[in-house]
Amino acid sequence: MSVAPDYENLTGFQHLLLSLDGPVLVVLMNRAKQRNSWIRTVPGELQRIFDIADKDDRVRVVILTAEHTAPAYCAGADISGGWDVLWNPEEEKEGPHAHRDSGGATSMVIYRCRKITIAAVNGHAAGVGMTAMQLPFDFRFVWAGAKLTFPFVRRGIVPEATSSYLLPRLLGHSRANSLLLTGATFSPDSPYIQGLYHEILPTREEVFPAALAFAKELAAATSQISIAVAKGLLQNPGDSVEENHLNDSIAMRALGGTADGEEGIRSFREKREPKFSGTLSKDLGPWFPWWRQVNTKHRKAKL
Amino acid sequence: MSVAPDYENLTGFQHLLLSLDGPVLVVLMNRAKQRNSWIRTVPGELQRIFDIADKDDRVRVVILTAEHTAPAYCAGADISGGWDVLWNPEEEKEGPHAHRDSGGATSMVIYRCRKITIAAVNGHAAGVGMTAMQLPFDFRFVWAGAKLTFPFVRRGIVPEATSSYLLPRLLGHSRANSLLLTGATFSPDSPYIQGLYHEILPTREEVFPAALAFAKELAAATSQISIAVAKGLLQNPGDSVEENHLNDSIAMRALGGTADGEEGIRSFREKREPKFSGTLSKDLGPWFPWWRQVNTKHRKAKL
Amino acid sequence: MSVAPDYENLTGFQHLLLSLDGPVLVVLMNRAKQRNSWIRTVPGELQRIFDIADKDDRVRVVILTAEHTAPAYCAGADISGGWDVLWNPEEEKEGPHAHRDSGGATSMVIYRCRKITIAAVNGHAAGVGMTAMQLPFDFRFVWAGAKLTFPFVRRGIVPEATSSYLLPRLLGHSRANSLLLTGATFSPDSPYIQGLYHEILPTREEVFPAALAFAKELAAATSQISIAVAKGLLQNPGDSVEENHLNDSIAMRALGGTADGEEGIRSFREKREPKFSGTLSKDLGPWFPWWRQVNTKHRKAKL
Repeated sequence: MSVAPDYENLTGFQHLLLSLDGPVLVVLMNRAKQRNSWIRTVPGELQRIFDIADKDDRVRVVILTAEHTAPAYCAGADISGGWDVLWNPEEEKEGPHAHRDSGGATSMVIYRCRKITIAAVNGHAAGVGMTAMQLPFDFRFVWAGAKLTFPFVRRGIVPEATSSYLLPRLLGHSRANSLLLTGATFSPDSPYIQGLYHEILPTREEVFPAALAFAKELAAATSQISIAVAKGLLQNPGDSVEENHLNDSIAMRALGGTADGEEGIRSFREKREPKFSGTLSKDLGPWFPWWRQVNTKHRKAKL
Repeated sequence: MSVAPDYENLTGFQHLLLSLDGPVLVVLMNRAKQRNSWIRTVPGELQRIFDIADKDDRVRVVILTAEHTAPAYCAGADISGGWDVLWNPEEEKEGPHAHRDSGGATSMVIYRCRKITIAAVNGHAAGVGMTAMQLPFDFRFVWAGAKLTFPFVRRGIVPEATSSYLLPRLLGHSRANSLLLTGATFSPDSPYIQGLYHEILPTREEVFPAALAFAKELAAATSQISIAVAKGLLQNPGDSVEENHLNDSIAMRALGGTADGEEGIRSFREKREPKFSGTLSKDLGPWFPWWRQVNTKHRKAKL
Repeated sequence: MSVAPDYENLTGFQHLLLSLDGPVLVVLMNRAKQRNSWIRTVPGELQRIFDIADKDDRVRVVILTAEHTAPAYCAGADISGGWDVLWNPEEEKEGPHAHRDSGGATSMVIYRCRKITIAAVNGHAAGVGMTAMQLPFDFRFVWAGAKLTFPFVRRGIVPEATSSYLLPRLLGHSRANSLLLTGATFSPDSPYIQGLYHEILPTREEVFPAALAFAKELAAATSQISIAVAKGLLQNPGDSVEENHLNDSIAMRALGGTADGEEGIRSFREKREPKFSGTLSKDLGPWFPWWRQVNTKHRKAKL
């Protein structure tokens, strides 16, 4: 069953402004005066909206962005009150072993969202603004003048939000070392980081429109089910070419028989653009690419 | 025991033209008028020839190419009759769970071929012409003017032929996303795809001769056994630096004691080009880099 | 307990010249006349010094380099006497299955060193000069004129020193194939290899000073514990985003509570450079990112 909320009037969002532009859900950071920094209530809102977008059949693409006049796309976590902002009081009662990084919890929800996800980085970005707010996305658009930094080793902590998993997969370990182990600040055209971006735009104003046009073209021309399963295969390719073969064989046989698979053929024969109607809630079928399920919840010693 | 067929007169090949040029087996797509598209009988021929090449000691390199005057290197699967071209009637009797993608089966045979493999992409390529006919190869040469596309998400299906495994390994996930999740068309000099190619040639006519010269130089200067075991190590590097150390230690000790290992030293001392005589059928020894064996065959419910 | 040796007067080093420049341990190859080639006693000295550096809290960065007037950074193993230089007489008594590649043993010690490691490649490099002496390092600096080659397949052997694991992780398999399966010679600005290097310097004289300045800046601005744990996370990212989340959550919670974590916050609030005092011997705590432990020792049949 698909959800269909009225995004402009959705309650419970204090830090995000939501709007649905046709098939594109636009999520705008609403803490411009605070450089869009994270406080304790930000990650929960991000997790909630990407979870809703995953389930709403109308949403084909989610774009996360900021006001292009804001001082930053995201300046990281607001640590003016100390690291305590990162610890969850409920978890702390159980002890430090119960801690789960809220940046990583956010990265995982965005990564698992079966829709196309785009980060439109129209300003400077640091810390969690580089990790959870960029790395789990399918595509990143960026302003050429953005100052980009993973400052963790210069703050006495470590790269978080699953960045030590996601960044080397995206760029390889040579570039990931140059970015994460220096904590230095980079421009998008630096050879260390440029491979991260699908597009680099000259001005801040151009970043969101470019991402939106890209999003609308993809929404019109691709199948919702194809995208979801393709993402699943890429995220869980298996440990060998043989495992992947088993997965993509199942996927091909399943999707070839759907209405979208038939429209794919029909539009090809008729030399026209396809009009896909399949939705995840109705047409996905029981199968999804296999992956290693790991339960990340803290297991309480006492109940 | 090594096979030594007469390639020009080998029976059973309808879609491929075969010729042995010294140590180089040239496999030419013979469906130029059909844009070298795949029909049901193409993958079996490709699988058979790469399997023969694997076993023929005379073959050091296999080049897959097309006529440079053909309308395409390969336009993908011929789906003018529907996706049914992809389903195997024998498998269908067992049910959809018995389906094994013929593109993936072909990728796996090419990937496992222990000889040097080169795709000489002297024309446009789409679908399986990008996947099975390029990604499992050791090296790819391409015409600068080629239009390259992985159109799956725009056809209601998914990336096949083990491309969701092979492409991120070759280029990293950032570029793989840009290629596989957009389904867009790219030129070889696009930053998304250029890392895939060993060489980009200005004209279609130059692609095959460049690949052939490269092939002959490698065939003359490298050891057949070294190449086979090096490929095995690269394809199965192990899950840790320690596992790799165990494998490459065995390989070094085994190969250092072969005639090729001795010729490697002797030619180095005598400051001349080596003349390696070792062959896979006679000189490989019992060991090969360890890998996860996964049986991909369908298991019939009833016998 | 931390060791604190007097490096300039450390006994047992014949092939290396050692010096401590503030927080930077400089390891200089001392076989310039022999093109810094490896003989049987070289790898043991390299392993010993990186193991000492790992334990000496004063050492924040280790730089491996050569005299910039030497004929090479490292010309590979000295095989003028045959491959026998690579086999260990003790292991040979047990049989060839007891062989453990000394290049790989060296790579593993350098890779496991929890300090920042830099290879300052101020001359030509071949064989083990490309593998163990470059690939396990965090950063590589290189002279633009260096001739770089992995010649193994042209010598009748295979890529060693865990290079078939490390190189594809650093650059992806497309570039790793072009480097390892050709055995050709490359310049640092070649598209196949440039991604390996953090910096490419025009002259040989500039390579070491650039690496030293980079090392000193990192030593001053980063936390010893942050670097060690960040390296651990990058080397052992887990098999899924969930596994990584469990690891980096533990790391964040642990490091946020250390003196370095507090200094990270304090210096941020006071808008000044941090002064980290934490050391691995005193402040690391019991936890380190989880990894697959593989025992690589030969198991003797008889005791």
